Amino acid sequence: MHMIIDCHGPYTTSPKALDEWRDRQLAGLVDGSRKLAASEPQISDDQLRETIQLGQLRIQRERGSDLTLFSPRAVGMAHHVGNQRVSEDWARVCNNLIFRITELFPRNFVGVCQLPQSPGVNPSNCLPELERCVKELGFVGCNLNPDPSGGYWKEPPLTDPWWYPLFEKMVELDVPAMIHVSGSCNPCFHATGAHYINGDTTAFMQLIQGDLFKDFPTLKLIIPHGGGAAPYHWGRYRGLAQMMKKPLLAQHLLRNTYFDTCVYHQRGIDLLTDVVPTDNILFASEMLGAVQGIDPQTGHNYDDTRRYIDELAISDEHKRKIFETNARKVYARLDKRLNAVGLIHG
Amino acid sequence: MHMIIDCHGPYTTSPKALDEWRDRQLAGLVDGSRKLAASEPQISDDQLRETIQLGQLRIQRERGSDLTLFSPRAVGMAHHVGNQRVSEDWARVCNNLIFRITELFPRNFVGVCQLPQSPGVNPSNCLPELERCVKELGFVGCNLNPDPSGGYWKEPPLTDPWWYPLFEKMVELDVPAMIHVSGSCNPCFHATGAHYINGDTTAFMQLIQGDLFKDFPTLKLIIPHGGGAAPYHWGRYRGLAQMMKKPLLAQHLLRNTYFDTCVYHQRGIDLLTDVVPTDNILFASEMLGAVQGIDPQTGHNYDDTRRYIDELAISDEHKRKIFETNARKVYARLDKRLNAVGLIHG
Repeated sequence: MHMIIDCHGPYTTSPKALDEWRDRQLAGLVDGSRKLAASEPQISDDQLRETIQLGQLRIQRERGSDLTLFSPRAVGMAHHVGNQRVSEDWARVCNNLIFRITELFPRNFVGVCQLPQSPGVNPSNCLPELERCVKELGFVGCNLNPDPSGGYWKEPPLTDPWWYPLFEKMVELDVPAMIHVSGSCNPCFHATGAHYINGDTTAFMQLIQGDLFKDFPTLKLIIPHGGGAAPYHWGRYRGLAQMMKKPLLAQHLLRNTYFDTCVYHQRGIDLLTDVVPTDNILFASEMLGAVQGIDPQTGHNYDDTRRYIDELAISDEHKRKIFETNARKVYARLDKRLNAVGLIHG
Repeated sequence: MHMIIDCHGPYTTSPKALDEWRDRQLAGLVDGSRKLAASEPQISDDQLRETIQLGQLRIQRERGSDLTLFSPRAVGMAHHVGNQRVSEDWARVCNNLIFRITELFPRNFVGVCQLPQSPGVNPSNCLPELERCVKELGFVGCNLNPDPSGGYWKEPPLTDPWWYPLFEKMVELDVPAMIHVSGSCNPCFHATGAHYINGDTTAFMQLIQGDLFKDFPTLKLIIPHGGGAAPYHWGRYRGLAQMMKKPLLAQHLLRNTYFDTCVYHQRGIDLLTDVVPTDNILFASEMLGAVQGIDPQTGHNYDDTRRYIDELAISDEHKRKIFETNARKVYARLDKRLNAVGLIHG
């Protein structure tokens, strides 16, 4: 038996007090007579426990997964709002809640942090919060937003030296990033239906165009939602890389780039696992996330992605890679932590 | 035997004189001492013949397709440049070249027009050119750019009444539109690797969010490049539609929305044809387009998409729909034209 590690778990059930804190913070931006809220929202351990026990923990048990890499919800990051200070306060508050949940349920949740990105601000402003989360709070990764403008794509591509201070710190700390946009301010882009998937596709193509992993051979990036459009258009991407005289994708990207399994139908997962090497696929569900509801074609939740993996005609060894081993390889600090506390299931 | 109609053929081999004309036009925008070029570029019939005989016609013959729906190249439309007048002159010049090719090779090429869109200009400015192309030049469809800003997405979603004058005219003329972006001014978006695919995904999600086909029950739209990310994430889109209390996609979109087969590997085409009803798939190759080169895994050109369809384990009747019948249904004027001139192959 192997563990089942879900590498893409957003805290979508966070208590109302968190939203109220955020509202007060943003109200302070437009009402000059207020001071920016800096204290933490008042949320008791019991309140936190309840959101998890009724939400993600219940679903872990129902679906039989063991551990969720847990982060503030992506759409809530809203890096486009306010300024650097606003993002820094907001990231700290959100990450602290995640930390408390990992303390309350240490066998079930491990933290992945929100970064305090802000449009036009060099991401080196994120280093203190990343370092705090990893070194003091035991987090094992971060979510990196390639478009802090929220649908207007004003930052340079991910392969630009603009981002290098962050990549240097990630390499130093040995933590990966999931490349994940936040909400969309652009009325053309539905957040979870267009902006998320476009963000994934865009990031993948940026990586093809650049040579990021020559400069950072140990950097690890996860592209969520099954890699956006990339696996479906794998021939297009292989062909474009070839036209650009880049190495084969296996050498150019796949030593450093991973896809999660947030693809909500069997045929999509079939294609993902047929086209992308098993070593590059990490189990994830985004559960209680973008798509909630039961698929009338199957009678199961769309985001119950374990079922799609279970159905695959691949060996148990390959399934183990997808469910456990790859995550422990990509999130090296997770592996150390699991070994240290003896959290070996089975 | 059936015809093989390629519904996505860009004139990527257009003569240098066309680019020079465009350069002079744009130079006139920044040099106030010049007048905007208005005359046609000087290109002989022999020059046009040569570009086609060495390019698209040769490939038609090599690959065994019969007829290409031929349009000015998408990346060249560049609606973001200049103003309404610039776009109108440029569209007219480009469409006139396509017309001449359809006259030189009437059995092999049928016209699809570029629209003179311009950022912030209501698309009703496109009606005269659309009407001219359809009524005077015998064109059977148009390419509609959902993002004339070229990667900044400043126009309203396609379901907004902003676009209705164009849809009304399309319905009146009984011509469909392929929803196709042009080049990208945004350094985040590679044109053919990100902006194109994102444009497709974005348009599909806009159609889910809106109710466009309630207002235009006979409107027909083609989403190119296999529908962007949509088929790979079909479960996500079915689930999002369900969360929004929209009808099933079959009722909500698939009476009016079609996907082409510009997906450059077998597994992608397998998924497309497994997930999307055969009635909604139109053969296309985008040949001599985005991805040129030979796939080392197959020994054939990436964009030789006929081979992927030929390999499918579906009935001849279904293949005929993809290769011929669906195109004649969606491009009603093509069907009339083929019937009238007796262009029945086989």
